[in-house]
Amino acid sequence: MSDFPIVDLLSKPEHTLKTIYVACRTCYSALYPIKIWEDATDEEKMLNLVKKVLASGHHSTVEHCQFVFAVSGVSRACTHQLVRHRHMSFSQKSQRYVTEKGEFEYITPKKIENSSLNEEYKEMMKKISDFYAKMVEAGIPAEDARSVLPNAATSSLIVSLNLRELMHLAQLRLCTNAQLEIRTLVKKMCDLVIEQEPWLKDYLVPKCEIKGYCDEIRGCGRKPQKV
Amino acid sequence: MSDFPIVDLLSKPEHTLKTIYVACRTCYSALYPIKIWEDATDEEKMLNLVKKVLASGHHSTVEHCQFVFAVSGVSRACTHQLVRHRHMSFSQKSQRYVTEKGEFEYITPKKIENSSLNEEYKEMMKKISDFYAKMVEAGIPAEDARSVLPNAATSSLIVSLNLRELMHLAQLRLCTNAQLEIRTLVKKMCDLVIEQEPWLKDYLVPKCEIKGYCDEIRGCGRKPQKV
Amino acid sequence: MSDFPIVDLLSKPEHTLKTIYVACRTCYSALYPIKIWEDATDEEKMLNLVKKVLASGHHSTVEHCQFVFAVSGVSRACTHQLVRHRHMSFSQKSQRYVTEKGEFEYITPKKIENSSLNEEYKEMMKKISDFYAKMVEAGIPAEDARSVLPNAATSSLIVSLNLRELMHLAQLRLCTNAQLEIRTLVKKMCDLVIEQEPWLKDYLVPKCEIKGYCDEIRGCGRKPQKV
Amino acid sequence: MSDFPIVDLLSKPEHTLKTIYVACRTCYSALYPIKIWEDATDEEKMLNLVKKVLASGHHSTVEHCQFVFAVSGVSRACTHQLVRHRHMSFSQKSQRYVTEKGEFEYITPKKIENSSLNEEYKEMMKKISDFYAKMVEAGIPAEDARSVLPNAATSSLIVSLNLRELMHLAQLRLCTNAQLEIRTLVKKMCDLVIEQEPWLKDYLVPKCEIKGYCDEIRGCGRKPQKV
Repeated sequence: MSDFPIVDLLSKPEHTLKTIYVACRTCYSALYPIKIWEDATDEEKMLNLVKKVLASGHHSTVEHCQFVFAVSGVSRACTHQLVRHRHMSFSQKSQRYVTEKGEFEYITPKKIENSSLNEEYKEMMKKISDFYAKMVEAGIPAEDARSVLPNAATSSLIVSLNLRELMHLAQLRLCTNAQLEIRTLVKKMCDLVIEQEPWLKDYLVPKCEIKGYCDEIRGCGRKPQKV
Repeated sequence: MSDFPIVDLLSKPEHTLKTIYVACRTCYSALYPIKIWEDATDEEKMLNLVKKVLASGHHSTVEHCQFVFAVSGVSRACTHQLVRHRHMSFSQKSQRYVTEKGEFEYITPKKIENSSLNEEYKEMMKKISDFYAKMVEAGIPAEDARSVLPNAATSSLIVSLNLRELMHLAQLRLCTNAQLEIRTLVKKMCDLVIEQEPWLKDYLVPKCEIKGYCDEIRGCGRKPQKV
Repeated sequence: MSDFPIVDLLSKPEHTLKTIYVACRTCYSALYPIKIWEDATDEEKMLNLVKKVLASGHHSTVEHCQFVFAVSGVSRACTHQLVRHRHMSFSQKSQRYVTEKGEFEYITPKKIENSSLNEEYKEMMKKISDFYAKMVEAGIPAEDARSVLPNAATSSLIVSLNLRELMHLAQLRLCTNAQLEIRTLVKKMCDLVIEQEPWLKDYLVPKCEIKGYCDEIRGCGRKPQKV
Repeated sequence: MSDFPIVDLLSKPEHTLKTIYVACRTCYSALYPIKIWEDATDEEKMLNLVKKVLASGHHSTVEHCQFVFAVSGVSRACTHQLVRHRHMSFSQKSQRYVTEKGEFEYITPKKIENSSLNEEYKEMMKKISDFYAKMVEAGIPAEDARSVLPNAATSSLIVSLNLRELMHLAQLRLCTNAQLEIRTLVKKMCDLVIEQEPWLKDYLVPKCEIKGYCDEIRGCGRKPQKV
């Protein structure tokens, strides 16, 4: 359970860099984009242009690249945060239609795991699980019985988003002020993408790295506070 | 608690019908819209045009009207459903930054309330509340302690959306297949708007009323199933 | 020029049907989605489930599939319509930064081409082109000189959208009431996708085919008017 | 015509500052938002909190305030730029359904007006107008005849957007690198809002004022370039 959340990259663009490069060139060129596409072979030249365009803040060009992830072992507290990102697409396991069998899966935050209350936490989860089962047994529909299920109960989702939104997600959720679980989840998503496209490592970073300063009310010291 | 969720309409457009009418006319008129606006006084004429445009499916014209609601006494199970509507805006009470004092507020689904398990449900909520308090007392941050808080725990939000999205929300969430709590919430939102603009009662209805048939896998019988 | 607009499919999902199937199953299954993904091999079974889910109107599951197109030879009248689709992503040739050399490319609507005014149309385009060139020559910036360029002047774009939006686009823009040029453009986009995924031919259709009736004020007779 | 574009504010929130304040407080308070709303009377206290929240980058709280504008005398070149803002709502005069009578209205960019080509520009517009009329006379539908109409031809729109998007629009379109016409349009929109809510003048500014530096490839010198 220490590997939670479980994240897999199901799908990525066939040609990430080339797609972005052709999008950038299309804006400033008299050539047909299909011609630019066919002639685009020089990786270094492509990377140079894309970096220049991204530095100038014209991020719509990276919307053409979509990534699809399978996510499991993530708490419903975390998914409630995640689905607030309105440019993303989600297909999430339903607690209305899927009845938990046996003890439900749940996460244990590090600070509870490392505390003297860890055992009592497990017992509480067991009690909740038993009462959930009892209600289901008594004919209470899953959609109502789930009222007792805790924020810690895990969920599964298919998540997709384009590269612009992934950059935005990273900027917000890799920030030290984001909760550890979503920070871990987004870090795993970014790492899987960077594994495919190493040049993206400079763009999948917390917002302070892009802005050069921290605008949070309480900063972590990584970058100086904005005056 | 039987009045849950608590819904108030905080803000509405200054001139709902007139705004939509002017938007409709602007598309098909050589006149400046400010001229149309100044001359728009005949309610019946306005209503006739707007109804005709809406019937033909051109719903972008109603996006210019926004409604703002204050919502309380709504479960986090329900808000997790609500925030999936990506054209709406939300400001929600944070379980990370607001520590529950005393017993947390929670909803009790009708089917549990009316069952023999109602007392045990209350006891379980009390146990969870006690353990939450114990964790907070022991120095576990609220953002981690909330792991035990159940789906039934209530939340508060400011919710805003335009009329197009409210129509869409009604179509999906007034459907008998929507869960009772969100159905009740959306019904209250619609009723508050209809109180202001009675002519909207024909548009704030479940999808089957618009389509003339039910496309759900299991229908409720209100309209015939789509063949 | 009779082949306008020019449309190429640059990128498609690696596994369209499988991605949608896994998204559908994730909502209703206790299994981890990565497990569903790994076990998904039976095309017919996948197709059956996906069709059932789509019939019931749960279209968020097809948002996980994105398609990227290169489009050229399309008028700015048409692109002004196209970019109104707010769930799509665009990178469009700029008339501010790209100065037209020689005569600009333009479209000729069928009804003009087949009329006695076709020659005069061509002459007018030539006059406009000459005056544009004269202004540029005189030092007027391209962004101002383009004021005389007509709606018929062509543009190029990279266009990307997910399958849900493509279905929506088809429903609106394959309608006989849509202007011929955008209808042709969207038809070509749909045909390229259907070539890859033949089962999608039932979903990339005008709205009347989905609804069973026509809700336009003036219908074309393909389906009966809504009463 | 020197007053182009013509911009009027048709609708604004009933209580802009109070709405934002209650949204901010709702996130961090145990109180019901309706209670916060009823007790919110101290303007200075409200402003202080809102400024603090905005400084920390939490901008979703200002989405609850929508503004509606009537815009006329704006070129179709400009509206093609404007409708790229996908969080805004538009109802625009249709060149398909509205046939131009007499000479169409058009804008003249300052650099053309002040050049020796101004008269020739007017003559070209007259020629285009005559040919448009001739085509319409000959039975060519307006939707095809408009092919000759220039980018300079004006349009009218109803435009609505929330305060978050207005801030974003200002950041991009008040930048010296934006084209003069859209800069003028957005400046007028912002001025009308600032007239109602003077405290917003610090937020309706070009992006360099927020970031403290310029990230454009070619800056205007207002702020230092990002290193």
